[in-house]
Amino acid sequence: MPNQPLRPAPGDMAPGDIAPAEFAAAGHALIDWIARYLADAEQYPVLSRASPGQVRSALPAAPPALGEPFAAVMADVERVILPGVTHWNHPGFFAYFAISGSAPGILAELLTAALNINGMLWRTSPAATELEQLTLDWLRQLLGLQSGWFGMITDTASISTLLALAAARETQPALAVRSRGLAGRPDLPPLRIYTSAESHSSIDRAAITLGFGHDNVVHVPVDNDFRMRPDALANLITEDRAHGRLPIAAIATVGTTGSGSIDPVPAIATVCEREKIWLHVDGAYGGTAAVVPELQQVLAGVDRADSLVINPHKWLFTPIDCSALYTRRPDVLRRAFSLVPEYLSTTAPDEVVNYMDYGIQLGHRFRALKLWSVIRVFGALGLADRIRYHCALAREFAAWVDAASAWRRVAPVHFSLVCFRYNPGDPDLNDEETDALNAAILERVNASGEVYLSHTKLAGRYTIRLAIGNVRTELRHVATAWRLLQDAAATVRR
Amino acid sequence: MPNQPLRPAPGDMAPGDIAPAEFAAAGHALIDWIARYLADAEQYPVLSRASPGQVRSALPAAPPALGEPFAAVMADVERVILPGVTHWNHPGFFAYFAISGSAPGILAELLTAALNINGMLWRTSPAATELEQLTLDWLRQLLGLQSGWFGMITDTASISTLLALAAARETQPALAVRSRGLAGRPDLPPLRIYTSAESHSSIDRAAITLGFGHDNVVHVPVDNDFRMRPDALANLITEDRAHGRLPIAAIATVGTTGSGSIDPVPAIATVCEREKIWLHVDGAYGGTAAVVPELQQVLAGVDRADSLVINPHKWLFTPIDCSALYTRRPDVLRRAFSLVPEYLSTTAPDEVVNYMDYGIQLGHRFRALKLWSVIRVFGALGLADRIRYHCALAREFAAWVDAASAWRRVAPVHFSLVCFRYNPGDPDLNDEETDALNAAILERVNASGEVYLSHTKLAGRYTIRLAIGNVRTELRHVATAWRLLQDAAATVRR
Repeated sequence: MPNQPLRPAPGDMAPGDIAPAEFAAAGHALIDWIARYLADAEQYPVLSRASPGQVRSALPAAPPALGEPFAAVMADVERVILPGVTHWNHPGFFAYFAISGSAPGILAELLTAALNINGMLWRTSPAATELEQLTLDWLRQLLGLQSGWFGMITDTASISTLLALAAARETQPALAVRSRGLAGRPDLPPLRIYTSAESHSSIDRAAITLGFGHDNVVHVPVDNDFRMRPDALANLITEDRAHGRLPIAAIATVGTTGSGSIDPVPAIATVCEREKIWLHVDGAYGGTAAVVPELQQVLAGVDRADSLVINPHKWLFTPIDCSALYTRRPDVLRRAFSLVPEYLSTTAPDEVVNYMDYGIQLGHRFRALKLWSVIRVFGALGLADRIRYHCALAREFAAWVDAASAWRRVAPVHFSLVCFRYNPGDPDLNDEETDALNAAILERVNASGEVYLSHTKLAGRYTIRLAIGNVRTELRHVATAWRLLQDAAATVRR
Repeated sequence: MPNQPLRPAPGDMAPGDIAPAEFAAAGHALIDWIARYLADAEQYPVLSRASPGQVRSALPAAPPALGEPFAAVMADVERVILPGVTHWNHPGFFAYFAISGSAPGILAELLTAALNINGMLWRTSPAATELEQLTLDWLRQLLGLQSGWFGMITDTASISTLLALAAARETQPALAVRSRGLAGRPDLPPLRIYTSAESHSSIDRAAITLGFGHDNVVHVPVDNDFRMRPDALANLITEDRAHGRLPIAAIATVGTTGSGSIDPVPAIATVCEREKIWLHVDGAYGGTAAVVPELQQVLAGVDRADSLVINPHKWLFTPIDCSALYTRRPDVLRRAFSLVPEYLSTTAPDEVVNYMDYGIQLGHRFRALKLWSVIRVFGALGLADRIRYHCALAREFAAWVDAASAWRRVAPVHFSLVCFRYNPGDPDLNDEETDALNAAILERVNASGEVYLSHTKLAGRYTIRLAIGNVRTELRHVATAWRLLQDAAATVRR
């Protein structure tokens, strides 16, 4: 490539970014826009009414040749993007696990984007590594867990669980999984993972990714309250060993997605200790409740686990993405993943943690800033109070369901999730017809734009889920959901 | 759990977040802070001078019980965090692949945090899915690639590459990898992955994660310019087949981390087509150069690949994290990962894409906003101009190295990376001593606080790397690096 003369950017601008004054002007406008948006989120339909292709077709099919001001971007955000947004900020968002960020989380994300560091190595920003370690230790204290847990922030619970299961795969160095892999090895038996029939699909996906295979995820039966049966777990492990299969890990869930059930972690831990297999606890949603002192028993037995995931972006007012992975065996996690090519080698002292050694992703965003900011601005008492309030709202809603003769609650309420079903007890309606009725009710309620709920199946039957997790949700929003559900039931039955 | 009365949060506050007015005030202050920081980034030492534990020990070991104002957080950011930050925004940051965000990217990240949506399903925010599809099609056009590529934004190239290799593993449904896994299968041969000896460690890590095993990553020899040798690739595949091993995929790199070399993609594609194995192209850094029309040949042959990764957070002024994964075979990627539990099932039309079907992570942040904003505000010409300018700066620096008798350039300059080594040709110095000299020079230069460079080994010898990628880097910063290197060389030789 011949040397070409250096030349400045067009228009005689020095090469560079938007000028600081312009950035500040656009930034101030955006801050005001966001303040209004957050105050007004209730004005929008929760569930977007966009039709497929509506957003994309309203924008140019090709990128602009010349730059535009950021204000032009914001005009299109208002005109095109916002109608295509399902408003997770809406206090009537009750679907999936309802989530919301919060002011300190949003501001800290802005700061993270501005600093734009990659904390792959301690050296590439000591503050990123050390604040992450400190903040996850704060969270550990808030959750009432013992000391001795190593914490790392990942993007999602899907990744946290995958890393935990990769560590589990690495517990037996004699298997040489890391170096030799799993395929083409007549010496290796099938490797088995155990979790409940109600656990999250991310566990299955992790098992597929890691080469265990979907068939080797053993879905342990649950009791009538959707909790894993430790006796069944023990039997399945025994059976697998008898068939020459190798049990690797069990995953217990504190707060399943379907029903919010809590697996009996102490009994499962006893099985895992006896069988010498890794115990991972998926507390992505429910574990957060332990920041409320009187709910700390939801994590009973978790200190006996090998790893744990808690998602502050779910129910701790931290903007997506922020998942906290804890392990009591960081040495094993490190053995599973550490690879230090020359271009990443440093002469840093041994005592520092280089987070790149503990996972798949080399790039490591400075996510600790937002969780740290949220904990500081809410304070331990503020966080506990809001989680406690969400749980109280859920119990209130559950009481309304329980008092209504045409509705059935189908799972205990441990957290902020209520699972229920319209069931008028009409002898002319069979189960399938009742399922269809519930689906029709849900569709009608969601079309209102006032609330958004989702569904699952429990014990094989269509079940409506109302999950509370938004920092702005109040009793009136829950009451609106209940009114809309009753109205919809009356309408669809006609 | 007994029903407890609903009670408001402490201090008679309604449950909720910081009030909008307070958010706006803190936000305006932060915007001004960031505008100053970005204008002044040059005032800080590039490489943090914090000692291990300095940041953590300056902060309370336990979380606060009561909330604090965000201003208190910012005070600690200034007092504690900033001295622990290695300033990737500093125009003298030349280490690794130098990166920087940009004003539109930062502002869009703020908006992403505020909207806080999870684009796991089309329905959970149609705008997130459709803007991602559109923006990645814009980027495809900017890169000069043909149509027909499916695009998805992931967090990192590590994940993008892992997903591509998971798809490769899934190309032969008869192997039933997804359902049966890899272990305990006498029917499966070892599965092999081919990449150059100069490729990125994320490929090895992906192979470990996916259960291929590190030993089954075949590092194909390179030529004198650090490019994979297609003849060697073909021979290694033939040899593996003769030994009963099953070739799965080859990974070619456009812009290796060590030297910026470009593997001969067309010749490698020919081998892959003949052998019917997946071709993944790692263009995480170098592929970006194709936004410059006269550099578009760096992606020659890539339209014959099965998948491609380009990282806008590396060299396209988009804040970390943003990695673009492209595949021409989304059906295979989907087959590898799609799992739709009842609680995520929707009645959306078949034509919509649900991104959760195409990867490990269920949570899907609205990252398209920042890339879209960057492309719009810079414009195609603006992006090309800045990348072109970086390449010109690198050639200028390379010319200085070439003209200096005591320095040797050790790799061609295709992009914005220059690899060189101090080598005064002193007969008293052997290679190891020269290596040590270069390490000492680098340490001295980085201690200056004015620039930050990193190193690698090329052809077994310690090599200093100067990478240009910051939107604010000008010729004077590169000149400073060169002056500091020469001064350091003079000092350490004494």
